[in-house]
Amino acid sequence: MSKKPLNVAVIGYGFMGRAHSNAYRKVGNFFDLGYDIRMKAACARSKDKVEAFASQWGFESTETDWRKLVERKDIDLVDICTPNDSHREIALAAAAAGKMILCEKPLARDSAEGIDMVKAVEAAKVPNMVWYNYRRVPAVTLAKQLIDEGKLGRIFHYRAVFLQDWTISSDLPQGGTGLWRLDVNAAGSGVTGDLLAHCIDTAIWLNGGVDKVSAMTETFIKERMHTLTGKVEKVGIDDACAFLARFKNGSLATFESTRYARGHKALYTFEINGEHASIAWDLHDLHRLSYFDHGDQGIVRGWRSIHVTDGDHPYMGKWWVPGLQIGYEHSFVHQVADFLAGVTQGKPASPTFRDALETQQVCDAVLKSARSGAWETVQG
Amino acid sequence: MSKKPLNVAVIGYGFMGRAHSNAYRKVGNFFDLGYDIRMKAACARSKDKVEAFASQWGFESTETDWRKLVERKDIDLVDICTPNDSHREIALAAAAAGKMILCEKPLARDSAEGIDMVKAVEAAKVPNMVWYNYRRVPAVTLAKQLIDEGKLGRIFHYRAVFLQDWTISSDLPQGGTGLWRLDVNAAGSGVTGDLLAHCIDTAIWLNGGVDKVSAMTETFIKERMHTLTGKVEKVGIDDACAFLARFKNGSLATFESTRYARGHKALYTFEINGEHASIAWDLHDLHRLSYFDHGDQGIVRGWRSIHVTDGDHPYMGKWWVPGLQIGYEHSFVHQVADFLAGVTQGKPASPTFRDALETQQVCDAVLKSARSGAWETVQG
Amino acid sequence: MSKKPLNVAVIGYGFMGRAHSNAYRKVGNFFDLGYDIRMKAACARSKDKVEAFASQWGFESTETDWRKLVERKDIDLVDICTPNDSHREIALAAAAAGKMILCEKPLARDSAEGIDMVKAVEAAKVPNMVWYNYRRVPAVTLAKQLIDEGKLGRIFHYRAVFLQDWTISSDLPQGGTGLWRLDVNAAGSGVTGDLLAHCIDTAIWLNGGVDKVSAMTETFIKERMHTLTGKVEKVGIDDACAFLARFKNGSLATFESTRYARGHKALYTFEINGEHASIAWDLHDLHRLSYFDHGDQGIVRGWRSIHVTDGDHPYMGKWWVPGLQIGYEHSFVHQVADFLAGVTQGKPASPTFRDALETQQVCDAVLKSARSGAWETVQG
Amino acid sequence: MSKKPLNVAVIGYGFMGRAHSNAYRKVGNFFDLGYDIRMKAACARSKDKVEAFASQWGFESTETDWRKLVERKDIDLVDICTPNDSHREIALAAAAAGKMILCEKPLARDSAEGIDMVKAVEAAKVPNMVWYNYRRVPAVTLAKQLIDEGKLGRIFHYRAVFLQDWTISSDLPQGGTGLWRLDVNAAGSGVTGDLLAHCIDTAIWLNGGVDKVSAMTETFIKERMHTLTGKVEKVGIDDACAFLARFKNGSLATFESTRYARGHKALYTFEINGEHASIAWDLHDLHRLSYFDHGDQGIVRGWRSIHVTDGDHPYMGKWWVPGLQIGYEHSFVHQVADFLAGVTQGKPASPTFRDALETQQVCDAVLKSARSGAWETVQG
Repeated sequence: MSKKPLNVAVIGYGFMGRAHSNAYRKVGNFFDLGYDIRMKAACARSKDKVEAFASQWGFESTETDWRKLVERKDIDLVDICTPNDSHREIALAAAAAGKMILCEKPLARDSAEGIDMVKAVEAAKVPNMVWYNYRRVPAVTLAKQLIDEGKLGRIFHYRAVFLQDWTISSDLPQGGTGLWRLDVNAAGSGVTGDLLAHCIDTAIWLNGGVDKVSAMTETFIKERMHTLTGKVEKVGIDDACAFLARFKNGSLATFESTRYARGHKALYTFEINGEHASIAWDLHDLHRLSYFDHGDQGIVRGWRSIHVTDGDHPYMGKWWVPGLQIGYEHSFVHQVADFLAGVTQGKPASPTFRDALETQQVCDAVLKSARSGAWETVQG
Repeated sequence: MSKKPLNVAVIGYGFMGRAHSNAYRKVGNFFDLGYDIRMKAACARSKDKVEAFASQWGFESTETDWRKLVERKDIDLVDICTPNDSHREIALAAAAAGKMILCEKPLARDSAEGIDMVKAVEAAKVPNMVWYNYRRVPAVTLAKQLIDEGKLGRIFHYRAVFLQDWTISSDLPQGGTGLWRLDVNAAGSGVTGDLLAHCIDTAIWLNGGVDKVSAMTETFIKERMHTLTGKVEKVGIDDACAFLARFKNGSLATFESTRYARGHKALYTFEINGEHASIAWDLHDLHRLSYFDHGDQGIVRGWRSIHVTDGDHPYMGKWWVPGLQIGYEHSFVHQVADFLAGVTQGKPASPTFRDALETQQVCDAVLKSARSGAWETVQG
Repeated sequence: MSKKPLNVAVIGYGFMGRAHSNAYRKVGNFFDLGYDIRMKAACARSKDKVEAFASQWGFESTETDWRKLVERKDIDLVDICTPNDSHREIALAAAAAGKMILCEKPLARDSAEGIDMVKAVEAAKVPNMVWYNYRRVPAVTLAKQLIDEGKLGRIFHYRAVFLQDWTISSDLPQGGTGLWRLDVNAAGSGVTGDLLAHCIDTAIWLNGGVDKVSAMTETFIKERMHTLTGKVEKVGIDDACAFLARFKNGSLATFESTRYARGHKALYTFEINGEHASIAWDLHDLHRLSYFDHGDQGIVRGWRSIHVTDGDHPYMGKWWVPGLQIGYEHSFVHQVADFLAGVTQGKPASPTFRDALETQQVCDAVLKSARSGAWETVQG
Repeated sequence: MSKKPLNVAVIGYGFMGRAHSNAYRKVGNFFDLGYDIRMKAACARSKDKVEAFASQWGFESTETDWRKLVERKDIDLVDICTPNDSHREIALAAAAAGKMILCEKPLARDSAEGIDMVKAVEAAKVPNMVWYNYRRVPAVTLAKQLIDEGKLGRIFHYRAVFLQDWTISSDLPQGGTGLWRLDVNAAGSGVTGDLLAHCIDTAIWLNGGVDKVSAMTETFIKERMHTLTGKVEKVGIDDACAFLARFKNGSLATFESTRYARGHKALYTFEINGEHASIAWDLHDLHRLSYFDHGDQGIVRGWRSIHVTDGDHPYMGKWWVPGLQIGYEHSFVHQVADFLAGVTQGKPASPTFRDALETQQVCDAVLKSARSGAWETVQG
């Protein structure tokens, strides 16, 4: 069957620009898509850098002004991989131009920006999605499947952490390329929007909505050199954040994230305890799912370490043979595949901008609680 | 050298009565003590049961009234292994009678009771200790040693959980033998006093005092048959409790405990993240300590799994040979050895009643915060 | 009910003298025995050392000549904890004196000695047993139970290793207290008799008899100071040994042992692959059993890590509560309990001397094959 | 800088055809190559299948006759992904035509075929390589680096297994697409050439040449339906193979492979014990390396689990950020990158055909020993 061409433009050439470009290039080799993806344009402010990026990834053209890019008639899909402070503006313009939009997480710096974005894409009726990629790690998708099948029963507990250690040195500056995540103006917040947003997205997907939260944040290093101003400036982001939560389904949760957990590079873990079974997962061994089934015969009951590499595991029939693991980047490939399948079938794949707004609202409540010292109800 | 006889009396024949008796009988085979421990008397209300217990454990005599026991001239040390509601009363009487006192944890049902007990033993100047036994699991003692040596540097994070799953069934009754932990009158609280107290004791020992907390508790099963009244009664304990904490040293912490975490029998874990190194431990594999040293050469840096069974590991020179693990019960043996060494040297071994009161005060703040919904400062 | 007194004598005060003494003292507190064990006599050549040992462990008397000991009328059970070169002689005398005999493993230095011992105890009709204690680690006993229930089906593969690293230094001498295991005259062989004997005993118990073997041995350090002669002498033991085996049931096996595996203190592991399920175990985490059941639903199939601490696990109902592990020493306690239950019921508990002879015969075939370079059939 | 075009042709569209094609397409996005790889031609006997394959992977043309393909002037590199029985013939023709050749492992069905192939490529002076891809899993490459740096010192032991469970059912037929590995004529041997060849290649790379071996093989299921003849035929391959080995450096080794190890999909593991340090690796968690350094301070010595995802780990600077793992397929990408770097620099990247012949010679000795029952010296 013939495939419809799909012209893709990526804005931003950083870590996410690479991860998404890889997904676009690769998805068609492994998944049957209704579309023939074309690497149409890359966009970034630096002409040299965007050309090098385009050359490396096979983009046919480049732009240095995203406004020009979103107006190009030959672009079908705009992928926003820029720092958080430009998500809203680009998304609104892309929606107005009728483009499909994929936006890197978090949706925005806060809910107010996010609401504008949701309104824009819904008014424009353009397919849209946010890159909360961990939903599509096969082990995580399997967790969702097991929960949906009722294997866990009533949920009592949810706990998640996202631990890193890359900002412990006080010599590390803030701001600019690669370091905008430490600049509160660019990022909106610190670990809350960057890391906890992932945990919250997964949690809402697996366990439903969050009712209220009690949080604390800390900025361990109060001042850092700002690479853009050349001055030592106050650090505005949260270096660490932990919160208690009550979900709408009655379960209790703890969430924690920090960039000061020595020994952990990107340790996102979650565990869910249900009446009949429990599940745990860990980004450092993302191809495994831990599962405890109380229904097993007593003397041989134990946590199972499932090597999620079989043909009947989510997405894995598309890859290699049992026992051979895939990695981090594949979650993005799956997301493109699902997004396009959703477009083809007219059923939006989640998380849409609207879905991602819910995560933003939890983040807002978390940051509000950290300031107020009180429990805060999630708005939305 | 000749050893001083030490006549021990144990009140209570349950799980802890057995664990302590085993420690008294065994310690002299492995540790050089200044005392020759004699199993002098066992005490419990049921004559049949206490006699069976005494016979099994080699006690020379029995009592059915603890008041008579504490007044006996031939008893040097009274060990309180009864439910929490009797700790205060027995301890006060034993102190008045000038006995050494070892009391099962938690010290009391609340700080008010605890303060009375501290006053009593300090006024009587009797050696005293509380059975927070996990401090003397060799891997935990090693953690303390590493922290005291400065290997971790500034501490950023502390997290601990104590997860069980034995009360998920609503058919389980409350009250009476083996089930008094579900009866709020006997226990004082649920997981907070039973399990989090362990976590807090270790945390204070390793990381210093707690400044303030924000907590939530939940009772998932609201009513249970009471074995003593034969009626379905309201459950007064907390089935689950989680709290955020700020330590006096500026570090942030999360604590959680529940008896509704399917798949976990007694999973007490803690992790500490410092500037230079991190440490983690797990009661389900209590003979191991996980350690990450950022000072290791970069390409071979990784979490080390230390098999704490070498002769130069804490306490381990007294046991077998490298590679051969000890178990849960040995922590009690170590505690008796340290207690008696402290008596001999005139330096009280911790945790004394006063040390344990601090844990009680954190528990009080936690339960208060769970009721108030606000951050509460730890009194004391 | 009243219990029969059982007067126990232990010959040898080393590592095994301690481990066995601990078992005798402790077993009655946890197991219901028909016997009241009395620590009657300790025996060793050094008067000072045996008296210190007797004092530490509560033996009522001491002997410095094992010949006198075995003739004492007040001794019911003789426990041989001496180096291998004296097993035969002591056992023959003890059998002639009508004593129950427990002998530390290996039974003897070779099968020829072992056959004499089997004949002696069988002629004398005295209860007898060899301390292959790992059979009675609860996780290993559970493995036996699962195999006997048919959960594995046809067995295809067995593999075992016993890895240590304590003799890598060429400065370590051979011979004498604590080092007789390096002296071929005292030990009979190196890792084959010391470590592989454990592996073979377990394997025969779990998987049946061994048909034939092909082996290699190596002595990495050819000469060591001998502590008894004060001279550098040739090392006669095998430092390492590996062999292929075919079991009578058609399964294939690999076995390996060494004292030159850096990083392993006492890593005895085995794995068994059957048609329907597989089992693995590891002495460094002896309280766990790994189990893979192919009958589990495909998408949630995985190796289960069973925490063997529940009341319905072998022996564990006698100890603490679920989640609280026991250690190495408990396997000896279990062995005493089973031995005495066997005596009471008139059903010898295994491994008897005869059972242990089978292990000796495999060891002989292994050492013979290492010399011949050919496959050797196990005699017996 | 401008890049030289490199026209690649892949023969075979199976598992390896896909894995290699993915590598060719992807390598240029992540590695700086002197070549611009072009997917020029795919070749397979079935016209329909090869066209579907070419379409999926972006090959510009197709062939159904490999003889025609190797003669095409517009092909620079021929990649042989066919069953083993055609490796020799295709390689000889491709060498004669002056093509660069990459050949899927094992090099051939036996050394005799392999020698012809080595002669052909060396006579033709064409760059050549065999796809022993596991050398280029970053954790394995790191192991090589640590050994080359002398971190392990003298090597005492090497052990490797490759365990699978996919052929346990007797219903599984032999021969034809996807099942040729069970047909001795197509494959040459069973697990020896398919799986042990990987283990041997790594071992030679890490530990040097093998001197002699003692082996056993077994075919558990003696007859299987042959899909090409439609008849039940004798199974000629080895289902399982284990062997003892002595390396030229004096170290001892055990190797084992089977397709009857229930619970293991593709569990390739190796462990190396040196005087100063040990290393272990496991394909099921291929992004980790276990490392034990005896030089660490005694009380904190332990096996380190290195998450091989940092920028200074082999190859990892080309991928994502620390903590984010890559998978199986990336080893092929690395191999293409290294092969082309070797071509550019005129230094052949290993394993060349000649290197791979050495593995073949060990395989031959293993199979010979399994037949003879004697130790066999490796020829070569």
